[in-house]
Formats: sequence, structure tokens, C-alpha cells
Amino acid sequence: MISRSPDLFNFRGVVSPRHLRSFHHRHHPPPPPAPTMSDLRPPEHQVAGHRASADKLGPLVDGSGLFYKPLQAGDRGEHERAFYEAFSAHAAVPPRIRDAFFPRFHGTRLLPTQARPRDPHPHLVLDDLLAGLRAPSVADIKIGAITWPPSSPEPYVAKCLAKDRGTTSVLLGFRVSGVRVVAPGGAVWRPERQELKELDTAGVRRVLRRYVSSAPGEGADCALAAAVYGGEGGVLSQLRELKAWFEEQTLFHFYSASILLGYDANAVSATGVGGGVRVKLVDFAHVAEGDGVIDHNFLGGLCSLIKFISDIVSEAPETPPLAP
Amino acid sequence: MISRSPDLFNFRGVVSPRHLRSFHHRHHPPPPPAPTMSDLRPPEHQVAGHRASADKLGPLVDGSGLFYKPLQAGDRGEHERAFYEAFSAHAAVPPRIRDAFFPRFHGTRLLPTQARPRDPHPHLVLDDLLAGLRAPSVADIKIGAITWPPSSPEPYVAKCLAKDRGTTSVLLGFRVSGVRVVAPGGAVWRPERQELKELDTAGVRRVLRRYVSSAPGEGADCALAAAVYGGEGGVLSQLRELKAWFEEQTLFHFYSASILLGYDANAVSATGVGGGVRVKLVDFAHVAEGDGVIDHNFLGGLCSLIKFISDIVSEAPETPPLAP
Repeated sequence: MISRSPDLFNFRGVVSPRHLRSFHHRHHPPPPPAPTMSDLRPPEHQVAGHRASADKLGPLVDGSGLFYKPLQAGDRGEHERAFYEAFSAHAAVPPRIRDAFFPRFHGTRLLPTQARPRDPHPHLVLDDLLAGLRAPSVADIKIGAITWPPSSPEPYVAKCLAKDRGTTSVLLGFRVSGVRVVAPGGAVWRPERQELKELDTAGVRRVLRRYVSSAPGEGADCALAAAVYGGEGGVLSQLRELKAWFEEQTLFHFYSASILLGYDANAVSATGVGGGVRVKLVDFAHVAEGDGVIDHNFLGGLCSLIKFISDIVSEAPETPPLAP
Repeated sequence: MISRSPDLFNFRGVVSPRHLRSFHHRHHPPPPPAPTMSDLRPPEHQVAGHRASADKLGPLVDGSGLFYKPLQAGDRGEHERAFYEAFSAHAAVPPRIRDAFFPRFHGTRLLPTQARPRDPHPHLVLDDLLAGLRAPSVADIKIGAITWPPSSPEPYVAKCLAKDRGTTSVLLGFRVSGVRVVAPGGAVWRPERQELKELDTAGVRRVLRRYVSSAPGEGADCALAAAVYGGEGGVLSQLRELKAWFEEQTLFHFYSASILLGYDANAVSATGVGGGVRVKLVDFAHVAEGDGVIDHNFLGGLCSLIKFISDIVSEAPETPPLAP
């Protein structure tokens, strides 16, 4: 949306996307053998975006740790690819940040799909961020009060602004785009997209509480708040590490990107640690160059999310309720 | 703009503005005697907003430390008064924050003015934030990528958004609304409002450098950066204290408010401290209730301003250039 040039991320000191590709291939192990159509399936835990089907492109996983995201139509797909290529090789991105908070990028690949079996479509090959979680509880949270890059054309701004005002984005600096919570018995709570769009402040708070409740029904007990949100390696400590980077980084502005939260409902323990808590950034079709300015829009939303989550940790029972 | 009710700031646990007034009068010393029209004059150092004249209302000072701000037309004036009344008495505002970063509110007063000598107009009576500075160098920086409260009506949003996109607000999270720099010899640099509106990122950086330069011409030397921006009690340390409060406070959202910077160009020393550096919040006609959510919009812009200023401090000469 913000540039028609594939050289968008041709930063000073960073080679162009075309060169990045050869750079990438020179320094990384060769990509794994191409999966066949029968290896691939829509991810079970997908909570936002289009789901792959007979008539729609959507993300696919191969069950061995890779995630295939179809390049989006128009400039968006190329834009997201250019971001991944520039970001993967950018000398000013701390390796710890790249490894901890971003999916690893393995290039692009043409894949036949159920929707278009004879017309292979380019896919970004990324790490499957939820690989290894047996019962993934997932939340997709779109960050920022503003979801449109400043240089966007007027009709796009108007369209985004209407969504940002109609959801909690403008008010809270973020909105919940998707959520899936697995209860200990295996029951899944997964509200409809429309229900999420209509959430107000109290509703967002309720969803973020149910995300860490052992029985994710209406009466959220927040029994997992300490294990998932709090403590060492929990969501809060990861978000605070990300915040420290956003207070300094002036490379990229992450318009309309999401923070993906994940943990393993089977492994998490109400009494302490475990559960493979993950905090990752995803969806980079609208990233803009930072040009020496911090991403105050993402940072503000991130701080707001941190406040919501730290309030839940403070209010949660210090010792979880006894099992019945 | 966001409420037609004078009870806007009728927070839980806080009495209504009407009650606040009596609370205020009970606990504060009685206001000083009313100034006469001849005591009052437009502040010499005013850098933003309308200047009081024969045909316009504008702020006035009395030379003894008070600043009189005419209540704005429509709801804005009443809204700003309601904010000051609620804020002055709010038990959850730390006294240190109120005293360090906000003008003290002394109630309202009907004053005859040059513009309307026979029709006294209500004025907010506030501390003159720049009292005591012999040669005030001043900057007015409007904070936030979004300057309209979320509940504003459509035409107001469109009007603000056009300004926010046309200036640096959306891109940087703030814009410079006014600046006045006094050189050691007394010469004043005070760019026109239109010039400030047209600033791009590089221009904002240049203005923030010239603000701390001993010769505020084009060749900014940033000789005062360490004294004014850096060090103990400098702008940066004050902004960081403010930031810590904004990471926690969920009482108010300060849409379209400004940070006012001030120092005494006669007293500041390029070699160290001094200069009475001031960092204050002003302009509260569009403050909204926080309702338990942090002001991510103000916080993001504040963090962006902090990054700009800390970059200038890092780049400035550690030892100032020798005097010629």
C-alpha cells in the first residue's frame, strides 16, 4: 500500500531485496525439500485471516515446523516478502530480537494449493510459531491505534480509520483479532470474528482474562495468569523486552502487525512455569521504513497491552485455587 | 468537543466540578486580588495560540506570577475548566507529578479585556509557567499522533486528521507548534507558524537542535544541549519521569495537549547546570477520561520526543566549544 517499488526496503547499508535473495541462499542451509500438496494442511490453531479451503488461499503447515503463507494480492505480498528479506539480513537488528520475537524466514516457494491445484502460488516459508505445542492456546492482537502507514492514499486511510474507530484500536491502541483457548479437558473456546470486532474495553479485558483461565467460560478464574502472563519467560517479561527495543529502534514502523501469543494448554501448570509461552510479531504487509523515528504507534499500543496484562497478573490469585 | 456535560470529569471517588470549586476554596488560600486591566499584558514569550489584542482574546500575565487564559468558545473552555478542577483535586494524581509538570490552577475569574472592555470574560487563573525567567527560550510541542478524542464527531475528526497528516504529528507522534529562542546577545529567533507547520522530520530535528544552540542560526552548535536537555533536572530526565507516570496512569487521555519547554537563556551555562529548565503540560480543552486505559497516544509521542532529544544529547559535543 505504501510503495509500488519492490526496492522499498533498500536501506542504506542493506542490499536490495533481489540481492538479499542471493545473500540469503549463500549463507543459509538449502531449504527443505518441497512439500507435496498432500503434506500440507491449514493450521488447526489459526485464529485470524482467511482459512485455506477449496476456493480460498490461506496459510498452510507441513507438520514438520514450517508455515507457508500465501503472498497476498496486489503489492501487499511483495511488500511483506521485501520486509522479511530486509529484516532477515539487517545488521542493526539485534539477533536476540530477531530470534525471540520474529518467525524465521526461509525464502519463498511456489506451491500448488487446493484452491488452485494447477496454478502454483508463491508462499512465504516461515517457522511455524506454534510448532511443538500439543494444545495451543493462541491470541492474535493487532497493535497500534493507527493501522495505516502515513503515506497511504486517502480511501485506504478512510477504510482503516473506520475499522480502527469501530473496534478498540483507537481507544486502547490494540484490538484482539483472534483467540482460541483450550481448556484442560480439551474443549476449545474460539469466539467468532464478529464477536471480537464488537468488543469494548471491558470485553477485551474479559477475553485477556479468559485466555489464562483454566475453565475459559464466562467465570474466568485467571488460574494460569501467573504461569502464562507473569514470571520469568512469561508474556509480560517478553513484552517488556520487546518494549525496550521499540523505545530505541528506528528501522521499521509496524503498521497493522499483530502480536501472536501462544502457550501449550496441556503443558502449562497453574502452579508455576512451563507451557512454552510464545510472544511473536506477525503480519508485515504494511510495514514502513522508520527513517530514524521510533514506532511510537506500535510502542504506545504495546505499553497499553502491557498495562492490561499486568493488571490481570496483579489481580489474579497468587496461589491458584485447589483442584476440585 | 467530547461531551456537552459540565460533569465530564465526575470521576468515581471525585466530586463534581461544582463541588470541586468549594473544595478548592476550602483548602487553598484565597485568590489574589483581581488585577485591573492596566496590570495585564500579553505574555512576551507566547509562542502558540492567539495573541491578545484589541480585537482578539488571548492569554494575559500580570507580572506577578499569574497567567490568565480566556475560556475558549463553545464547550472547550468549560471542558478545560472542568479538567483543571478535577485534576487539582484528584486523589490518584501524585502530588509530585501535579507540582512538577502542571500549572497550578487558581480558579476562574471574570476579567475585562482590551478586546471586550465592557464585557468581562471568564479566564482560567494559572501559574505563569515562565515567571522568573529573564530571557525565556520556549518551545510548545503538541503531543500525540492523534489529536482528536475518540468520541469526537466525524467533521472534527476529519479536520484534525488533515492537520495531523499535514504536519509531523502522525509520522513523529508530535509536532512543534511554537518556538522562541533567545541568543546570548538577546536576539530572538521565532519562526512563523506557517514555517513550523511545514516542517518535515529533518526540520523538526533542526528546530530541536537550534533550541539548545548558543547561536540559534542555521549552524546549530548544540552548545547548550548538555545543560538544557541532558543532566540532572534537564529536559530528558524530566520527560522520563513524566513517561513513567504515563506508563501507569489511566485517569486522563491528553488529546491535543502540549509539552511546554522553557529555560532562561541568560542564566543557562554551556558548561553545566542552571537555566531553570521547565517541562510542563498545557492545553487541556480536549482531555478525555482514561477509564482504566493508559494514554498510549500521548505516551507514544512522548517516547518519540525523548528519542529525538536523547539523540541530540548523544551527538552534542561533550565539552562545549570555547568562547571566541
